[in-house]
Amino acid sequence: MVQAIDLPRNEQGIAAALDILKQTFGDRFQTGASVREQHGHTTTWIKNQMPDAVVFPLETAEVADVVKVCARYGVPIIPFGVGSSLEGHVNAPAGGVCVDMSRMNKVLAVHAEDLDCVVQPGVTREDLNTHLRDQGLFFPIDPGANASLGGMVATRASGTNAVRYGTMKDNVLSLEVVMPDGEVIRTASRAKKSSAGYDLTRLMIGSEGTLGIVTEITLKLQGIPEAMSSARCSFDSVQAACEAVMTTIQYGLPVARMELLDTMSVKAVNAYSGLDLPDTPLLLLEFHGSEAGVAEQAEMFGTIAEESGGSGFEWTTSTEERTKLWQARHDAYWASIQLRPGAKGISTDVCVPISRLAECVRQTQEKIAESGFIAPIIGHVGDGNFHTLLLVDMDNPEEVEKADIFVGWLNDLAISMEGTCTGEHGIGQGKKPYLIRELGKAVDVMASIKAAIDPDNIMNPGKIVPHA
Amino acid sequence: MVQAIDLPRNEQGIAAALDILKQTFGDRFQTGASVREQHGHTTTWIKNQMPDAVVFPLETAEVADVVKVCARYGVPIIPFGVGSSLEGHVNAPAGGVCVDMSRMNKVLAVHAEDLDCVVQPGVTREDLNTHLRDQGLFFPIDPGANASLGGMVATRASGTNAVRYGTMKDNVLSLEVVMPDGEVIRTASRAKKSSAGYDLTRLMIGSEGTLGIVTEITLKLQGIPEAMSSARCSFDSVQAACEAVMTTIQYGLPVARMELLDTMSVKAVNAYSGLDLPDTPLLLLEFHGSEAGVAEQAEMFGTIAEESGGSGFEWTTSTEERTKLWQARHDAYWASIQLRPGAKGISTDVCVPISRLAECVRQTQEKIAESGFIAPIIGHVGDGNFHTLLLVDMDNPEEVEKADIFVGWLNDLAISMEGTCTGEHGIGQGKKPYLIRELGKAVDVMASIKAAIDPDNIMNPGKIVPHA
Repeated sequence: MVQAIDLPRNEQGIAAALDILKQTFGDRFQTGASVREQHGHTTTWIKNQMPDAVVFPLETAEVADVVKVCARYGVPIIPFGVGSSLEGHVNAPAGGVCVDMSRMNKVLAVHAEDLDCVVQPGVTREDLNTHLRDQGLFFPIDPGANASLGGMVATRASGTNAVRYGTMKDNVLSLEVVMPDGEVIRTASRAKKSSAGYDLTRLMIGSEGTLGIVTEITLKLQGIPEAMSSARCSFDSVQAACEAVMTTIQYGLPVARMELLDTMSVKAVNAYSGLDLPDTPLLLLEFHGSEAGVAEQAEMFGTIAEESGGSGFEWTTSTEERTKLWQARHDAYWASIQLRPGAKGISTDVCVPISRLAECVRQTQEKIAESGFIAPIIGHVGDGNFHTLLLVDMDNPEEVEKADIFVGWLNDLAISMEGTCTGEHGIGQGKKPYLIRELGKAVDVMASIKAAIDPDNIMNPGKIVPHA
Repeated sequence: MVQAIDLPRNEQGIAAALDILKQTFGDRFQTGASVREQHGHTTTWIKNQMPDAVVFPLETAEVADVVKVCARYGVPIIPFGVGSSLEGHVNAPAGGVCVDMSRMNKVLAVHAEDLDCVVQPGVTREDLNTHLRDQGLFFPIDPGANASLGGMVATRASGTNAVRYGTMKDNVLSLEVVMPDGEVIRTASRAKKSSAGYDLTRLMIGSEGTLGIVTEITLKLQGIPEAMSSARCSFDSVQAACEAVMTTIQYGLPVARMELLDTMSVKAVNAYSGLDLPDTPLLLLEFHGSEAGVAEQAEMFGTIAEESGGSGFEWTTSTEERTKLWQARHDAYWASIQLRPGAKGISTDVCVPISRLAECVRQTQEKIAESGFIAPIIGHVGDGNFHTLLLVDMDNPEEVEKADIFVGWLNDLAISMEGTCTGEHGIGQGKKPYLIRELGKAVDVMASIKAAIDPDNIMNPGKIVPHA
């Protein structure tokens, strides 16, 4: 929904809390219009809703101090990573205090022998991987943006590697969280598995800052594979490409990445990057393993792709060649934006059982054609997740409304196919109505958990649950 | 703790609820002493605490009916699978109604193309795998017992395959749950990944029936691997074996199973099964993949094992030979029990970061020797999880107390090593004090969730959270 949620403001409480925080945080407390605007604005089409102040804590105790002050005066708290979320997650519909975690950006420990590490939430995924490289380790979750790990926890992020390595829910061992009353908890030990009570780790992952502020994250790591191979294949139709995807998954090929570009995306990258790929749907794959293993797997995929009518199959293990094969994917976002200069790119995020993927993409393409949108499709198809990048002229209210209707139609289509309105972006403000359509009474259970943990609704109000 | 938790009984409510349920369920409502005793007795050393009645529902609507009746009269409800849990999970400390899910044992759907299936909670893991075999699929989670899938959800179970395939938390897509007010919710769609609100699926997994009754489970499935290889290697010390484990994991070898038997376990299986394995710690491994892959992996492990001082390395891909290599592990439980006929086997379940595993096992063995216990050790060592099977004469109160002290000592040791008191068995009644020592204030958050979802504390009271 383009319409932002507006909530009543607690003017008196906000004034009191700001007074105290200003004294405590000095120049790490800011109320300038530009910094506030920057923090109330994210990559979404929901209008900017600014916080009243932004604080920049350096350690857990400071986060707890902010939360305690805000709790005392009933003031909203909005945790902020790098602002790359897509559904109005960091908007401040009732004003309040934005807690910018970017200065809590230390890698606190790397336990190479345990394949885990402990980081502060402001560390970005690229910074972490730079830090780890020398030790032969990496963290596999890779959303499009160079997001902060705290933000990735908050939205249960994933990306192109999820088909092999899972999402954030599968790659966090434990969290330190400042709860809405200022208490600091640790959700789990550092053990690789546990049956010790309710899974608070997973409850916090995807809670979008509505249940507490994550101040420390223990992440699972992976050894950098001995070898990688990449493969590319074109198909006459999305259906044929999806058939190859299904067979590959069913065959149990341990594919690390499996991405689809539809015809419009392929045309966009051909134009943008001077490539000459066939103007048809394209699958891009990556395999991780031993030298022999990744060669075997790429060739196996070649056989599957051929049986599904694929053409132009290529594969390689050389780094340079792999980059070239994947260039279409790397350039896709910027190439797509160029299809309509000046337009805003609005991304959908449905995810359906893989058996319904071809049909879901086909209906989406038909609807796009019918509506006259320019809207290329890119998919993490190994998981049944795809993004439609709607290029919208935000100065044309009719078009914005039409886009809004399209997004709703697509979310409902995915839900009708036993899928979800969001595979990896989250609910925020934008998808609240669809969450109810998707999960019905389960949303009441979410609301009761929210009310129990945050009875005064100060943690990122207006997000996920109704009436919050 | 051997001491059972006793809670006050609501005699009037129980009488009223039983009256109604008797009329509704006819001969699927039972109050005979033997059936009640069987349902209040599990494989634990906590005394039997019988429910007042056992009902056998056939469908979700009937479960909801039972819950609504019990909710109206404030009567405890104890969900029951096959009774293989180990920490007093199904004991009825305040009496009430045991809901035996064993007749809800249908496989409702297998979506081979999506690698998932939908089952009722009474389906056992072996029944499911028998059902799936013809389609080339399997469900990898394998606790020791032939547990029901509902019970496995409840305890967040795992087993020997967890090092590759994860635990129940990683293998459930969605749940249907009857909540404590009788409402039926679905926690998630059937999509492979989702960021749609709080992760109620993971909240329910491991909640041990304290938040609701699971009535339908959507499980991820795996294709039966093209090939499997098994390997076996002996080591001079647990330290050397653990070093090989660490190197194997760090190397990124996709091991499916990696089990440790300590010297006492090896001696037990030698005696029980007429094997002639060296009387030293033993590692058993299994690899899943392509023919070439599993051969390569087994040989790679051989090199690693040799570098860690291993001896007697053998490996094979033939099914018959694999069974032989694994015979020691398959026979370990019964062989261990034979070390002291008449004694009860009490299993500990600590799990520590893998870098601490050798030290944790070493201290445990020392303590066992010091205490004079017969207590072989078997470990899912790829995950840092191991079980000590304490063989206890339950008729000797002093010995029982000594065993209780040992269990506490070991739980505390694991916690001090950033590990957990339970890798896969759960908290139940038995580990409530250790949960608090392990997670501190986080347990208060669990208690507030419990109070919000089940304000009258009717769902499996006395388990996991304090004051419940």
